[in-house]
Amino acid sequence: MTRAVDVVTLRDALASIHEPWSPQVVGTVNDCLAKVVKLKGEFVWHRHEAEDELFLVLQGTLTMRLRDGDRVLRPGELIVIPRGVEHCPAAEEEVHVLLFEPATTRRRGDAD
Amino acid sequence: MTRAVDVVTLRDALASIHEPWSPQVVGTVNDCLAKVVKLKGEFVWHRHEAEDELFLVLQGTLTMRLRDGDRVLRPGELIVIPRGVEHCPAAEEEVHVLLFEPATTRRRGDAD
Repeated sequence: MTRAVDVVTLRDALASIHEPWSPQVVGTVNDCLAKVVKLKGEFVWHRHEAEDELFLVLQGTLTMRLRDGDRVLRPGELIVIPRGVEHCPAAEEEVHVLLFEPATTRRRGDAD
Repeated sequence: MTRAVDVVTLRDALASIHEPWSPQVVGTVNDCLAKVVKLKGEFVWHRHEAEDELFLVLQGTLTMRLRDGDRVLRPGELIVIPRGVEHCPAAEEEVHVLLFEPATTRRRGDAD
């Protein structure tokens, strides 16, 4: 199968998302996925047993709660949550994020 | 080994790069790496046999030459070059890019 080689405009992909916490895949890199997502409010504490998870803030301010303290990310900042590390993303106002993570990653990790 | 969970500011990571075509790793996601890189001029036509490669433009304009035509990317736009697809990144003026690719990816692919 031939894979299309198209330019993806993240702003357009985000414009098609109408619910927070609903990622949309924008690219596949081997067994990993790039996704855009809108976050607002507080998610749930969880961890991924086998997957690292990268968050890059595109717009807004993301608070990543970790057991040893919060990390605050602004546009152009990223954080990698290593596998096994409990975390809870939170955002007072809507924040736009690019995620990179293995395709096997379950959204709520061990919280389900 | 405990992995640090630190915020990475892409602008700072880029400021420490003084040569084009010299990627710097800013994050590890399982067997993939996120890297920032400055591109200027024209690279070399190449392909990666087994690795897909994602380019996200942070600043400037990137021309991705493909055998079926050029793709032009501006900030906030990304493209995934599937494994096996010949490509040649080019930039008239310096462009800042976030790469996401398997750790096994050789920079010049089959051109070496």
